[in-house]
Amino acid sequence: MNTELLILGANAAGLSAASRARKLAPRLPITVLDRGPAASYSACGLPYVLSGRLASLDALLTHPPDYFRDRRGLDLRLGHEALELEPARGRVLVRDAAGAESWLHFENLVLATGAVPRWRPRPLRNLFAANTWSDVAALEAALRSGEIRRVAIVGGGYIGLETAEALRRRGLAVTLVDAHASLLRTFDPELTASLPDRLAALGIEVRLNIRVLGLSGAEGGRVLGVETSDGLIPADAVLNCAGLRPNSDLARAAGLALGASEAIRVDDRQQTSHPAIFAAGDCAETRHLLTAAPLWMPLALPANHQGRIAGINASGLTLHGAPARFPGTLATLAVPLAGLEWGRTGLSLDQARAAGYSAAAEEVAAASQASYLDPLPVTVRLIYDIASRRALGVQFRGAPGTVAARLDAAAIALAARLDLERIEMLDSAYQPGMAPLYEALAIAAHNAREH
Amino acid sequence: MNTELLILGANAAGLSAASRARKLAPRLPITVLDRGPAASYSACGLPYVLSGRLASLDALLTHPPDYFRDRRGLDLRLGHEALELEPARGRVLVRDAAGAESWLHFENLVLATGAVPRWRPRPLRNLFAANTWSDVAALEAALRSGEIRRVAIVGGGYIGLETAEALRRRGLAVTLVDAHASLLRTFDPELTASLPDRLAALGIEVRLNIRVLGLSGAEGGRVLGVETSDGLIPADAVLNCAGLRPNSDLARAAGLALGASEAIRVDDRQQTSHPAIFAAGDCAETRHLLTAAPLWMPLALPANHQGRIAGINASGLTLHGAPARFPGTLATLAVPLAGLEWGRTGLSLDQARAAGYSAAAEEVAAASQASYLDPLPVTVRLIYDIASRRALGVQFRGAPGTVAARLDAAAIALAARLDLERIEMLDSAYQPGMAPLYEALAIAAHNAREH
Repeated sequence: MNTELLILGANAAGLSAASRARKLAPRLPITVLDRGPAASYSACGLPYVLSGRLASLDALLTHPPDYFRDRRGLDLRLGHEALELEPARGRVLVRDAAGAESWLHFENLVLATGAVPRWRPRPLRNLFAANTWSDVAALEAALRSGEIRRVAIVGGGYIGLETAEALRRRGLAVTLVDAHASLLRTFDPELTASLPDRLAALGIEVRLNIRVLGLSGAEGGRVLGVETSDGLIPADAVLNCAGLRPNSDLARAAGLALGASEAIRVDDRQQTSHPAIFAAGDCAETRHLLTAAPLWMPLALPANHQGRIAGINASGLTLHGAPARFPGTLATLAVPLAGLEWGRTGLSLDQARAAGYSAAAEEVAAASQASYLDPLPVTVRLIYDIASRRALGVQFRGAPGTVAARLDAAAIALAARLDLERIEMLDSAYQPGMAPLYEALAIAAHNAREH
Repeated sequence: MNTELLILGANAAGLSAASRARKLAPRLPITVLDRGPAASYSACGLPYVLSGRLASLDALLTHPPDYFRDRRGLDLRLGHEALELEPARGRVLVRDAAGAESWLHFENLVLATGAVPRWRPRPLRNLFAANTWSDVAALEAALRSGEIRRVAIVGGGYIGLETAEALRRRGLAVTLVDAHASLLRTFDPELTASLPDRLAALGIEVRLNIRVLGLSGAEGGRVLGVETSDGLIPADAVLNCAGLRPNSDLARAAGLALGASEAIRVDDRQQTSHPAIFAAGDCAETRHLLTAAPLWMPLALPANHQGRIAGINASGLTLHGAPARFPGTLATLAVPLAGLEWGRTGLSLDQARAAGYSAAAEEVAAASQASYLDPLPVTVRLIYDIASRRALGVQFRGAPGTVAARLDAAAIALAARLDLERIEMLDSAYQPGMAPLYEALAIAAHNAREH
């Protein structure tokens, strides 16, 4: 079989590529394959299914599969796995949902194969992950069977933490295990120091500084718990949230260049080392917007952006006469945890120093609006370069509703490479019931300038 | 009497100047005079007193007057009015609270005399304004006497509208009169078209397109109502919210240069045409950050910023070796009205065209977070230059809590002169319970690029 544009992966990056190509090239033959059962679902919404706030996974679908077939004219095939890629012959070996294998020929290819768990323990029954529709469908089935009361979660990144809170809110006994002394380590530890206690107050048992040695399983492959440097943590189910790695095996086997991160190396047009093959999203390496250093950072919005760019360039299209280019990412991340919201963009203090900056951080406890109108707390950390007096990173911790748009403002300030003086003088939206006279970020910039 | 630094006006601009000078020059003799009874109160909070949400005006004081005397070492004198300024002799004729007049000599002067109502009808009892502490103290006294049940408000700018809503929420019958066809005219009319109906739904009688001819008064000077092109609007009290003008009379009489706006002309150091005299806040003219055109725009945050800059420069001080400079304003304005929030920054479409741009606007109805988690509505209007594809202005209308920080992000994008492509690719804070995948502003930029 032949297609003009083949896309492997039908979620954030893959369907963004397909939709963008379709918009600009109404008659281009486009085929999209995904090994999973769902296309275009909100993976970031999976914790809301686990917590019970959403009644089912279907709530996460932006459109049913037929929408993409009928309304967007995409040849979308779910349950199709790419087994082998031959760049020189422009073909991919595909196994369909029924198990039949065939070669599919393409003119241009977009790889959007996502990420997979980094930790690969021996398979046991009731060992789950929480990254994909399939992961959560399997976990949900087990939860609904009633056989799971105690869950051990390995990994204190945002997926592990969101999953821990969701399952705790659902009434399960939850133990969270992490090998390090702090959680959510893309943030400066000063901002997240209270997080273990906050999670403990929700009834989550937080076990830091212990190493996972393996899983304990009984006969029949049933999981008994997590073996750690501090003994066995018994559990009816174990969740592997110990980080992700790029799903680049197909690309590696095909001889495409990978970065040091093991993610597929691409240029700012999302083109790989083979001119007809593009890559986007969690399987691809990207660059940091401030340092231009290669970076692997699996996040939804950059994946969507990169997918759109890959879709344009893989179709040989331009917008306003120029190829589409991805400017790099600030690794902007927001997450609600334990009754607060957390957000970060740009470099952390450690990252800034590792990148060679003489960096410092200014932390300010500020407010969402005027002091006389029941303001909510918002704490900001501004990481800046002492020499150039430019902002390098911003992190927030605040009450619900206070963080996301402030983080957007900070991300724009970073992207525009504003210096502290300009940030201090921001013409922000003061109105006592809506926003304070001096925004948290402006106060931090002011204080940093005084040093 | 002599002082080193004399500041006329003890609120946003004046006390910012004094506080900044004090911080950088701990022993500089600084005298601050204000003709009113209160220093350093939040004028933007006055509607919350009128609505009854705040129990008294005192809630608006950031500090009591003695704080500035004892803790900041400022010679602060309330109830002192400057009658005459002689720049060449470096002195101001002052009338104190007891009515005694004397000359006060200065080395450097900061004028922060604010704004006054533009419309000056003949004085009548129960004719009020709503701009200052004194205005609201007088109005409050009348309201508490129980003699006022029907109020007519002249002027549909944000002060008139906030005041109308506050008094309506307090239970008064309120009629709002405006000579134009729309309200809140610093916004594009498309965004505010629903505002009259929304105010009417609160029980406010909105009378548009009628001209005010004068005030009707009975014997003894009691107000009877507003005489208009559509007949008499009877009222127990009339509020003059028909706009402001810069309080620049003292400067004009002293021969200082004024701008076309009648506000005091200053450079970006806030220096007037006399080298020892600086001006800041509502009495001073400023420049638009995007067009650099002279602009008079009485708003609290720029007043505070300008005050700080005037305080530094009037003291002959520098920070990091350079004079402080005000970069210009985007006229960022936010206001909650009729259950929604409204915000604008930069140029409106009309302003952009008047400034010579070939401008267009893109309006998008978007959401505060993921569609499956009960998002709140946020509508954005992006005004952009068709030729350069740069953003010129951004306006929002949204549910409570959705507008202010988004407006800050937009203001930073304007200040950084980002083009539509960069705005579309913003690395924003996606998390389904906190923010949508594609922010309103990014969608608007995307749509505008497609044209």
